[in-house]
Amino acid sequence: MTSGDGGRTAAYRVDVQFGDCDPAGIVFFPNFSRWMDAASTFFFRSCGLPPWREMTALPGSVGAPLLEIHTRFVASATYGETLEVQTRIEEWRAKVFVQQHRIVRGDVLICEGRETRAFCVRDAEGRLKAVPVPDFIRAACS
Amino acid sequence: MTSGDGGRTAAYRVDVQFGDCDPAGIVFFPNFSRWMDAASTFFFRSCGLPPWREMTALPGSVGAPLLEIHTRFVASATYGETLEVQTRIEEWRAKVFVQQHRIVRGDVLICEGRETRAFCVRDAEGRLKAVPVPDFIRAACS
Amino acid sequence: MTSGDGGRTAAYRVDVQFGDCDPAGIVFFPNFSRWMDAASTFFFRSCGLPPWREMTALPGSVGAPLLEIHTRFVASATYGETLEVQTRIEEWRAKVFVQQHRIVRGDVLICEGRETRAFCVRDAEGRLKAVPVPDFIRAACS
Amino acid sequence: MTSGDGGRTAAYRVDVQFGDCDPAGIVFFPNFSRWMDAASTFFFRSCGLPPWREMTALPGSVGAPLLEIHTRFVASATYGETLEVQTRIEEWRAKVFVQQHRIVRGDVLICEGRETRAFCVRDAEGRLKAVPVPDFIRAACS
Repeated sequence: MTSGDGGRTAAYRVDVQFGDCDPAGIVFFPNFSRWMDAASTFFFRSCGLPPWREMTALPGSVGAPLLEIHTRFVASATYGETLEVQTRIEEWRAKVFVQQHRIVRGDVLICEGRETRAFCVRDAEGRLKAVPVPDFIRAACS
Repeated sequence: MTSGDGGRTAAYRVDVQFGDCDPAGIVFFPNFSRWMDAASTFFFRSCGLPPWREMTALPGSVGAPLLEIHTRFVASATYGETLEVQTRIEEWRAKVFVQQHRIVRGDVLICEGRETRAFCVRDAEGRLKAVPVPDFIRAACS
Repeated sequence: MTSGDGGRTAAYRVDVQFGDCDPAGIVFFPNFSRWMDAASTFFFRSCGLPPWREMTALPGSVGAPLLEIHTRFVASATYGETLEVQTRIEEWRAKVFVQQHRIVRGDVLICEGRETRAFCVRDAEGRLKAVPVPDFIRAACS
Repeated sequence: MTSGDGGRTAAYRVDVQFGDCDPAGIVFFPNFSRWMDAASTFFFRSCGLPPWREMTALPGSVGAPLLEIHTRFVASATYGETLEVQTRIEEWRAKVFVQQHRIVRGDVLICEGRETRAFCVRDAEGRLKAVPVPDFIRAACS
């Protein structure tokens, strides 16, 4: 976890497995989305926030479901390699935020993704609804 | 769905995808378990039973979690191929049952699996517990 | 497969399984990418083209790897539901093309994705390289 | 990596992710097979052996494909938990070996699996064939 003008950055480690790769011998791309989702959670925990389901400051919290993803694939990766997912918040808006993930192998950029997410809670009737970005979450990530 | 001395058999179709295969060009084996799980559900629906969460005859039903699996891999399969998972109940015991899955490509046996499962319900406190095999389920599958 | 001003559209069927869903009870989003990839291949086969590895008109063909994906998630889907991935080519450029996938449940849009891909071949040294969009492929998809 | 009468044991760490779990909130079982496969490779690397594709002492080596798996599920696991896969060789036969994996959360056994595998090489014609267990591999694992 590092901290800078743009806020904190967390680094989530991935050891690429044989079974993560396809017949071309490279990572099957939906696995990159899977790792970015793990890195998203890892980021918030690294900022000192509790797990969503234990977040008493935001009752009914279920996390931050995705509204949109955008990923650019730059280089391929294969099994036996260790990758790092570098995650930070790129932009806070009133009701949503953009999380950026750069997956690198050493100095080499493998892919870069942006996820637009909204914090959601489950109300008394069990329905999910988005809530404005809570100040305490934004503060923890800065 | 066919019916015989050993009870009903359902046939679940799988079109093997590129992303289901590993760098050796063949199906990555945990996908066979995934397909057997889908075939398990398909079997019970083919027998005319409702989805678990709508099974009013067994309140709190959550399905039939696995206790044990045993799979023999006989031949490999690759993308572009169509497989069939042939599923039946091999044995009913008091509290558990054994479901057999044969995955074939035409006449060729690809793998054969046995799953030991128990029907479970969620009680008022939210805990899962196994229940004896309900007669109406056993009758539907015969 | 239907055909219109914008070219052909293929419809790939997905039966959502229990194991495709997450603890929130809805499809874990990387599975949508997995299904779009399957639908991409399905589209080209529906246009009458052979599998990539048998495409003698494009020697060394390995298919059309991804350069970029962009997906908007509009509504959630859960197990027991049947979805349809409606796939077409949205744009042909000199070296790349954009494939559009709309995943629907009946009239309801679940998510919409755009994939930028390039046709690639493996050269004599085993390296992958992108080639200009072949005319016979473009013609087959129109 | 520890060493005892029964040979070496490697411990492979798994951080269970949200996306590894199903609508019941627990690990979807094929993921256990996926982790055991990763732990199998990790075991051989921990014993000091090179990656299969760089194993010059066994030309054409492609690893040790599965012939059979047998897994007993004892307790459930959920996201946010850290598991350990404890892997060792349970039995060496002439042409195959049995690898045992115990997945634990602290002192709690989650599941236990046995995998029967054979070392395979790709011959000059590109066909896979099983070879007798090489002495240098057996020695490295003891």
